Amino acid sequence: MKNETQVSIHPLARFAATLCWEDVPLQVQRRAEDLWVDWFGSALAGQNARPVQSITRFALSQGPAAGPCEILGSAATSSPLMATQANAAASHVAEQDDVHNGSVFHPAAVVFPPALAVAQSLGASGVELMQACVAGYEVGIRVGEFLGRSHYRIFHTTATAGTLAAAAAVGRLLKLTPEQMQHAFGSAGTQSAGLWEFLRTGADSKQLHTAHAASAGLTAAFLAQDGFTGAQDIFTGPQGLAAGMSTDADPARLSDGLGTRWATAETSFKWHASCRHTHPAADALLQVMQQHGLAPVDLAQVTCHVHQGAIDVLGPVVRPSTVHQSKFSMGTVLALAARHGHAGLTEFDRDYLAQETVELRDKVSMELDAEVDAAYPRRWIGKVSVQTTDGRLLKGRVDEPKGDPGNTLSREEITAKALRLIAYGGVLQDAPAKAVVQRLWQVAQWPRVRHLLD
Amino acid sequence: MKNETQVSIHPLARFAATLCWEDVPLQVQRRAEDLWVDWFGSALAGQNARPVQSITRFALSQGPAAGPCEILGSAATSSPLMATQANAAASHVAEQDDVHNGSVFHPAAVVFPPALAVAQSLGASGVELMQACVAGYEVGIRVGEFLGRSHYRIFHTTATAGTLAAAAAVGRLLKLTPEQMQHAFGSAGTQSAGLWEFLRTGADSKQLHTAHAASAGLTAAFLAQDGFTGAQDIFTGPQGLAAGMSTDADPARLSDGLGTRWATAETSFKWHASCRHTHPAADALLQVMQQHGLAPVDLAQVTCHVHQGAIDVLGPVVRPSTVHQSKFSMGTVLALAARHGHAGLTEFDRDYLAQETVELRDKVSMELDAEVDAAYPRRWIGKVSVQTTDGRLLKGRVDEPKGDPGNTLSREEITAKALRLIAYGGVLQDAPAKAVVQRLWQVAQWPRVRHLLD
Repeated sequence: MKNETQVSIHPLARFAATLCWEDVPLQVQRRAEDLWVDWFGSALAGQNARPVQSITRFALSQGPAAGPCEILGSAATSSPLMATQANAAASHVAEQDDVHNGSVFHPAAVVFPPALAVAQSLGASGVELMQACVAGYEVGIRVGEFLGRSHYRIFHTTATAGTLAAAAAVGRLLKLTPEQMQHAFGSAGTQSAGLWEFLRTGADSKQLHTAHAASAGLTAAFLAQDGFTGAQDIFTGPQGLAAGMSTDADPARLSDGLGTRWATAETSFKWHASCRHTHPAADALLQVMQQHGLAPVDLAQVTCHVHQGAIDVLGPVVRPSTVHQSKFSMGTVLALAARHGHAGLTEFDRDYLAQETVELRDKVSMELDAEVDAAYPRRWIGKVSVQTTDGRLLKGRVDEPKGDPGNTLSREEITAKALRLIAYGGVLQDAPAKAVVQRLWQVAQWPRVRHLLD
Repeated sequence: MKNETQVSIHPLARFAATLCWEDVPLQVQRRAEDLWVDWFGSALAGQNARPVQSITRFALSQGPAAGPCEILGSAATSSPLMATQANAAASHVAEQDDVHNGSVFHPAAVVFPPALAVAQSLGASGVELMQACVAGYEVGIRVGEFLGRSHYRIFHTTATAGTLAAAAAVGRLLKLTPEQMQHAFGSAGTQSAGLWEFLRTGADSKQLHTAHAASAGLTAAFLAQDGFTGAQDIFTGPQGLAAGMSTDADPARLSDGLGTRWATAETSFKWHASCRHTHPAADALLQVMQQHGLAPVDLAQVTCHVHQGAIDVLGPVVRPSTVHQSKFSMGTVLALAARHGHAGLTEFDRDYLAQETVELRDKVSMELDAEVDAAYPRRWIGKVSVQTTDGRLLKGRVDEPKGDPGNTLSREEITAKALRLIAYGGVLQDAPAKAVVQRLWQVAQWPRVRHLLD
């Protein structure tokens, strides 16, 4: 007896299950490699952080003594699930991993760790790894766009859409059929979770969010391979994701331009080591300071004209008490950018509570701007008004912050950024770091994905 | 530098971190033992089910080859996390585990598996295990009540509040301080997930939900022990659980009668092997059939007068195609009850698609009833109208379905039910099953929690 509900395969599940590397246009392949190298730097930079170490210790205590999968920056190895938890936790903590503007979703942190672990456990090729990761990006970004701004107001989209992104990537590596992929989506979506509430006290949840999303998605894909079924319409069903966690979900976004529009290539690189919501204003401030030859002491007051999302996420952070929290403080980011020309990991660690930083920080405020808000999240416009100590009112503006697709990083800049992040992580010396990054650029030629570090 | 947000410890976190067995009134201690024995039957009955086997296979493939924790009904052992996944998946599939009416929450499935696994790994005493489980019940039930009916309309409360229940139970075993317990709550709540959408096609997600909730809560507690921080107000914060997943949350419920009102003792046992929403109507139908000496062939039409929650959960299930789905079909449950006097596991397996069942099933309908709906979820009133084939219109009514606190099971009935469930699971012969259940009743005397099965 067949079930009365005859279900059709969602185009997104079919796409994820059948995407091949050769279907991906060359410039998108190159961009996927850029994102892969860029991610690696973030993962190495983050592995030492206290919350990441907690998650890694827990994962190792619950998993096998050794396994086919690498815990990046550690001598330990484990099973795919446990390596995924550790590496996904590490990928997001430096706040330097990539972001897709339209979905406000950080794909790298939830896509590369599970895909790498499963590729290592299967002995998959570099192309199999990369096509799986592109599937993860395309799915996760569309799910984030689908869930919309109302979702992001309360939920950390990287955590929620992240389960779907991870399921797509792992599912592609496991060669799920379209029907199995749809079941994997159901099992992933019903584990989607992650609330912004932790920001209010600068708690460690962000690392748990990426670890959870990546491992929940991986679990969903493995279960689907074993015949485990999930909801057939986890996205738009009357008790699905949109019904429970969004008030402005747009189903058309789920399959928008599948196979022709490459969301992977729309992904931005982060230049400053802070929440992406701070970058447009930071770049606008740098622009006005450069144009008028201003020094930090010339700044009497800085007003950032921002979108509502920036106020929602950054607003609660008034006096950051941890370096991680300070990356969500608009004032701190602008102060560091003004003082050093760039708010990088080292600048944060050294100076986020320096007196000059704090003084400058307290001169920065945010204000909702209709133009910026209307363009968001498709475009992240940066606008600031600067009151100088000598009484001038100056305006700064950037239409695409550095790292956005129209103002992207060169391969040299990506390599340099990755090397800075690896050095920050402290696991590798300069020469071996350069050698690893060099190897990573060749991923599409690898016959088999081995450990990235020896 | 202290964080500007001075946080206080929520009474619920303090309660969970400090609850001792000797604080629990004697009759509540006895009820907790009842629930423990009742749970064991469900776990043994469920371990053979296909979706459970999938989750167990996955957990074993990702964990160590052996560990301190028992996978019930299997020769395998594993780490706490992996044993929890397997045992929590097994506990809910037979639809015979307990339920708390007011919260529409099934505590046993998400409390006993993680607590047992951690107690085995620590070598905790039976009293330490049981006080942790009471903490889990008291917390989970209050969180379910807090999230309210609007939450349950979309979310499977056992899956969402379940992370908090598991965190409380495991956190108590790990001897978390109140502050650590609050962090564990934050980490648990930010992983709360589980959508009803899977019911529409009878997918396997319910087993994933309990496995996920129990292991996410366990993870949260272990991380808190290691200094990992979580949101300080995951319940009512502006980007917390209520903000994201409820429109009628009631914060007063979170600490309602802590230490004086024992929600553990309000928990109902399930008599029929089906979704609890079907039980009041099934008992009301049995009542009217008994009173008027009706046989199944006398029934021309049965209208169940129900609360909205029953329509939300059971409404989509019109023609069940799997035995699990049929436990959410009001028509199937009433047909089996009418034919056999009780809708148990065996009746479902043998007869859910029998022609007589299907014919009777299609004569059953549901209709919203103002009195029943207003009393729900505090009271689960059962009301049916029966049109007989000879033209009579008869009314049936029960005010407390069998298994509710006011109409509860005796220890003999609980033992008999557990033995039926164990026999259904097929792992143990009759004599060893009786011996295990006998031992389980002595839990509070155990100096150390060992494996339940040898």
